[in-house]
Amino acid sequence: MFEAAELGRKISKRDFQDRLSSLRVELLNMQFGLKDADFPVIVVIAGDDRSGTNDALNLMNAWLDARYLLTNAYGPRSDEERERPPFWRYWRALPPKGRIGIFHGSWTWEVILQRFDAAIDELTMLHSINNINSFERCMVDDGAILLKFWLHLPKSIFKQRIREWQKDPEQSWRINQVDEWMFNNYRKSISTIENVLRRTSKGETQWNIVESSDNRYANLRIAETILERVNKRLKENENKPSESSGSSFPSALDNQTTILDKIDLNVSLPKDQYEHSLREWQSKLSRLARAAYEAGRSSVLVFEGWDAAGKGGVIRRLTAAMSAATYRVIRISAPSAEERRHHYLWRFWRYMPRAGNVAIFDRSWYGRVLVERIESFATEREYRRGYSEINHFEEQLWRHGIVLSKFWLHINREEQSRRFEARRNTPYKKHKLSDEDIRNRNRWEDYKRAANDMIERTSTDYAKWHIIPANDKRHARIQVLQIVCSMLEEALEGKDA
Amino acid sequence: MFEAAELGRKISKRDFQDRLSSLRVELLNMQFGLKDADFPVIVVIAGDDRSGTNDALNLMNAWLDARYLLTNAYGPRSDEERERPPFWRYWRALPPKGRIGIFHGSWTWEVILQRFDAAIDELTMLHSINNINSFERCMVDDGAILLKFWLHLPKSIFKQRIREWQKDPEQSWRINQVDEWMFNNYRKSISTIENVLRRTSKGETQWNIVESSDNRYANLRIAETILERVNKRLKENENKPSESSGSSFPSALDNQTTILDKIDLNVSLPKDQYEHSLREWQSKLSRLARAAYEAGRSSVLVFEGWDAAGKGGVIRRLTAAMSAATYRVIRISAPSAEERRHHYLWRFWRYMPRAGNVAIFDRSWYGRVLVERIESFATEREYRRGYSEINHFEEQLWRHGIVLSKFWLHINREEQSRRFEARRNTPYKKHKLSDEDIRNRNRWEDYKRAANDMIERTSTDYAKWHIIPANDKRHARIQVLQIVCSMLEEALEGKDA
Repeated sequence: MFEAAELGRKISKRDFQDRLSSLRVELLNMQFGLKDADFPVIVVIAGDDRSGTNDALNLMNAWLDARYLLTNAYGPRSDEERERPPFWRYWRALPPKGRIGIFHGSWTWEVILQRFDAAIDELTMLHSINNINSFERCMVDDGAILLKFWLHLPKSIFKQRIREWQKDPEQSWRINQVDEWMFNNYRKSISTIENVLRRTSKGETQWNIVESSDNRYANLRIAETILERVNKRLKENENKPSESSGSSFPSALDNQTTILDKIDLNVSLPKDQYEHSLREWQSKLSRLARAAYEAGRSSVLVFEGWDAAGKGGVIRRLTAAMSAATYRVIRISAPSAEERRHHYLWRFWRYMPRAGNVAIFDRSWYGRVLVERIESFATEREYRRGYSEINHFEEQLWRHGIVLSKFWLHINREEQSRRFEARRNTPYKKHKLSDEDIRNRNRWEDYKRAANDMIERTSTDYAKWHIIPANDKRHARIQVLQIVCSMLEEALEGKDA
Repeated sequence: MFEAAELGRKISKRDFQDRLSSLRVELLNMQFGLKDADFPVIVVIAGDDRSGTNDALNLMNAWLDARYLLTNAYGPRSDEERERPPFWRYWRALPPKGRIGIFHGSWTWEVILQRFDAAIDELTMLHSINNINSFERCMVDDGAILLKFWLHLPKSIFKQRIREWQKDPEQSWRINQVDEWMFNNYRKSISTIENVLRRTSKGETQWNIVESSDNRYANLRIAETILERVNKRLKENENKPSESSGSSFPSALDNQTTILDKIDLNVSLPKDQYEHSLREWQSKLSRLARAAYEAGRSSVLVFEGWDAAGKGGVIRRLTAAMSAATYRVIRISAPSAEERRHHYLWRFWRYMPRAGNVAIFDRSWYGRVLVERIESFATEREYRRGYSEINHFEEQLWRHGIVLSKFWLHINREEQSRRFEARRNTPYKKHKLSDEDIRNRNRWEDYKRAANDMIERTSTDYAKWHIIPANDKRHARIQVLQIVCSMLEEALEGKDA
């Protein structure tokens, strides 16, 4: 979930200043337009970067018109509050229609904290999460815009910051118990956070994960998102068609690094080494696949990636090591007439493997948030809902004990050109090149952003995305073989059973 | 929850036959119209009346055109099914767009059964319920019509039936383990059922509780509901305004008994006895209220009922026994301009009492599903959502340890006339009679149905409705005093803490 928020996204001071003066005017205009609207705006700012959330809260207060703004920060509960049900403090602070209410930390953060120090067990946590979801659903059903931002610091920066504060007597006051606990239990705390955020992300109540190593980037991202969402709704209410999303985004935020940009595509494997490795790993996979079959442990492997990234080749190297009776490769293209008459997940449920078997998806349910999003086959509501629908779907597979691996095969544009060219010039490969490939190619940037969002929102504890550098086919194939082997091995050892 | 399904509702054989021939034609026409629609219809038929659900399933199969119908009944899981995640069996059976799929028992029933024999703990149950809600939400978000029917037998009839079967060697095969368990653990099983049904009732996924002591009534109710909901959606899709709901309902179903009709309004209390009782109960309430205050136990008392039913008088008899510093009477009328700018529950949250205090609501949040429903101040979607929003709201009060009592003061039309007349003729009461009262009076039947639905959907284990016969004011006052005393007593003894 946090991979896509550890990319070192930055805004230069100059870009920031350039944008700021017009941004502030736009924010004030937005508030003015909102004044008589029939919906409130609820903004939640929380995060593992505590000082970043403070900073953001202060800036939003400075940038927005305080007359139409309510800011709420929460400390320990007062007597007044303890004597009422837990959500009383939040209900009373809700903004009326036409106003923006900013909540610092608040209901979700409270549950995370309680879970940190094990003040509540899993059952109580689940009750609390259901309360949160009912509460937020109430707001959204009633027409509120709900925007939730989670400010995330990459681990190394988080740890480094705490260490620096610890050393500096003038800064050490900044560290509170929570920081300390997270510092000492980093993995556990991130996993708790991920769990709670995922369970409280449902369609319109989705968390926006914002990388906060650079305050300028984080604050701009928050302000622009508020601006965009509110203006969009105001326009819709006037019955004007809203502009295509993103167009109002400034270039400084637009051209940010995606998680795919961070992949080192220069890795490669010499041919002789490849052949040796291939034999080695295929024989290992063959043993493991047989053992999994005998143990009744099923697997679902998902392959997504650019056109011509080599998905077919990777899959063939896997299946070569499996017994034909135990696996099935499912190639997903546009849905059939029958499939279109069902919920988009229906056709994938059909292919869930029997005990011990392997289902390999060459493209998958992720079409919903990739091609369907980009080509507008799915509406914005539909594809946004898709993330939580998919997470819930995969959670069911995981709870059932299915070994689930998801791969994004990554190449760059130049490599794709070379491969398209090769296809064009090789008679027996020519059929693989379609007009669609060419069209998709023109939407490279859109796909990159959609893939980034997908990885951010659906990479979970129980179903991580593996991004495989695939400019070198040999390297990609071996890497996938290794990952599949290690997942099977872990599963058979019962490590994640 | 089940009170309103224990009224002995019946359809005579003749009324049934009268309706049946046209109903069957309408059902087939509906299916024909549905054929090319872009949504599926998912019907769930479950219940504590197992043989009633079988009967309903068979009849729907007979009445509907099998070509456009999929029926699914579920026994123990097969190998095929056990090897996949739990919802696989349901996903594969979903109807495509334009078709009706009927599910017998199915996902919710399965969880209830597991909970009956304690095969799953509360945490697992909560996970399962979350799965159900996500699954159903998926369907509904995708446009499906989801209709869930729970066939309920009143306790006496249920027990009598099982006893008869037990005695009759030719019938005893009918009894299965579940019946037997329910027979021996009736209260516990109904409470489990209520808990699961409530948690899986959310706006569009609301359960329809159908009394099934009379099969003709139950089956007609199911068929008419399907017919009405599908036709309504088909009309909406053609952009025609849908007819006002209920108009298509046949008189036989329309004129059914409501829970209010069952109230014996002839009870009364002679004046001298009343005065004695009043002193006695007020003194008791006074002691209990002081004890509750000292123990920090708060109360919320809700009064709803017909105009002129005597709410004010009852409330004054309560407050006379309380210390003025500890209670507050909140009279709810149309929302203020400020309140209208918030979620409708917001204004009630504001009045939640501090520890040990009492909040008395003269009319309440139930306006959402009464006056707002009837006067169309709330849309159908809004008031339907209201039931689960209110249940969730009250659950939070209950979990916080607040003593919650809800009273419906019931009088009949004649008594209301007399009281209006008296007001008209008594100078100091004249101001109490408004045009609105007269208008409301003309909607007596609408209110009766709305009150019935309200009691059915919001009478929960933790927040029961008390229906108070109030033609005799003295009797009503003493009864309310008694109930409030006994609830406080229980709470202070920690019975429900």
